[in-house]
Amino acid sequence: MKNHILTISREFGSGGRTIGKQAAEQLQIPCYDSQLIQQIAQESGFAEDYVRSAEESTPGIVTSVFSTRAMGPTNEDYLWEIQRRVILHLAQQGPCVIVGRCADYILREEARCLTAFIHASLEYRMDRIVRVYGERPESPRQRVRDKDKKRAAYHRFYTDMKWGYAKNYHISLDSGSLGIDRCAEILTSLYRSLTP
Amino acid sequence: MKNHILTISREFGSGGRTIGKQAAEQLQIPCYDSQLIQQIAQESGFAEDYVRSAEESTPGIVTSVFSTRAMGPTNEDYLWEIQRRVILHLAQQGPCVIVGRCADYILREEARCLTAFIHASLEYRMDRIVRVYGERPESPRQRVRDKDKKRAAYHRFYTDMKWGYAKNYHISLDSGSLGIDRCAEILTSLYRSLTP
Repeated sequence: MKNHILTISREFGSGGRTIGKQAAEQLQIPCYDSQLIQQIAQESGFAEDYVRSAEESTPGIVTSVFSTRAMGPTNEDYLWEIQRRVILHLAQQGPCVIVGRCADYILREEARCLTAFIHASLEYRMDRIVRVYGERPESPRQRVRDKDKKRAAYHRFYTDMKWGYAKNYHISLDSGSLGIDRCAEILTSLYRSLTP
Repeated sequence: MKNHILTISREFGSGGRTIGKQAAEQLQIPCYDSQLIQQIAQESGFAEDYVRSAEESTPGIVTSVFSTRAMGPTNEDYLWEIQRRVILHLAQQGPCVIVGRCADYILREEARCLTAFIHASLEYRMDRIVRVYGERPESPRQRVRDKDKKRAAYHRFYTDMKWGYAKNYHISLDSGSLGIDRCAEILTSLYRSLTP
């Protein structure tokens, strides 16, 4: 049977990861965020096996760190493929929350997903990243804009969907206006109402 | 004091009007939909007065039914202005639900709005409009596409915001996947949590 998975896409600084963690705690299910998935992909025997098998089945396709896509899959493509497998694997283990990494797209046929998008105003996110992640050499505005661009490009490249469109998700929430706790409560309650 | 207003923008056929009515019933506040606002604008002494005063203050600006925008405000512009005044007037009377007519944009400074966008897949909407509004000479697909285009253009022209972007709203919901009743419940519960 397919598991019920809450996937959370989010703008940088919107608190999507915190919302995912809070919802997972309330639902008593695991929460996997982007960093964790990347770590699992890099550390797990599963991922190492996959890289090995990929090498075996497609000789020479693992190119150097200087690879470009014209020469075949890049290192980013490999990381994407490994992460995709990790996400599919995690979704098969049981109900969970997955934050980021286009999990909604990866699991669209493989799980019963409740797909959420968390966004907030530029001002709210600029303020929040300084409070949560501290000061950096770049201005908060620059940091948010850079990350926004990268996430939109990543999403577009791997899923071919327009970033930020309401139609891509079952529910989209403005965490800046509604508050992080309230967003977590809405998702928790909605997830509960959808699961038997 | 500014009133709490739930505004609902919606794709044609998504059930946004029904969701608004259900939420208003549960909240025991009035619900004004597009047709009702247009009717109030056309029938009310308020609107007639406004049209008269507009004529008086800007002589000659009321052009014929053959007017184009290059010649000054069109009839659509007048209807927009009258509707805008009706919406502002309604929002001053007390808490309410307003469906359509860019009420979120019109009230952005004038009320405490909870802004919602209701969307659904093309398939869901095609099926629903035949069930709710009956068959028409044009195909359901054509009817939905025409209305989508018109609403996006109307919204863009009068608000300068991109139609369908999650960031334009506090909450966006997929009524096709979540169900009309559940969407109404989410909005009711969220509205209640935001009002004292």
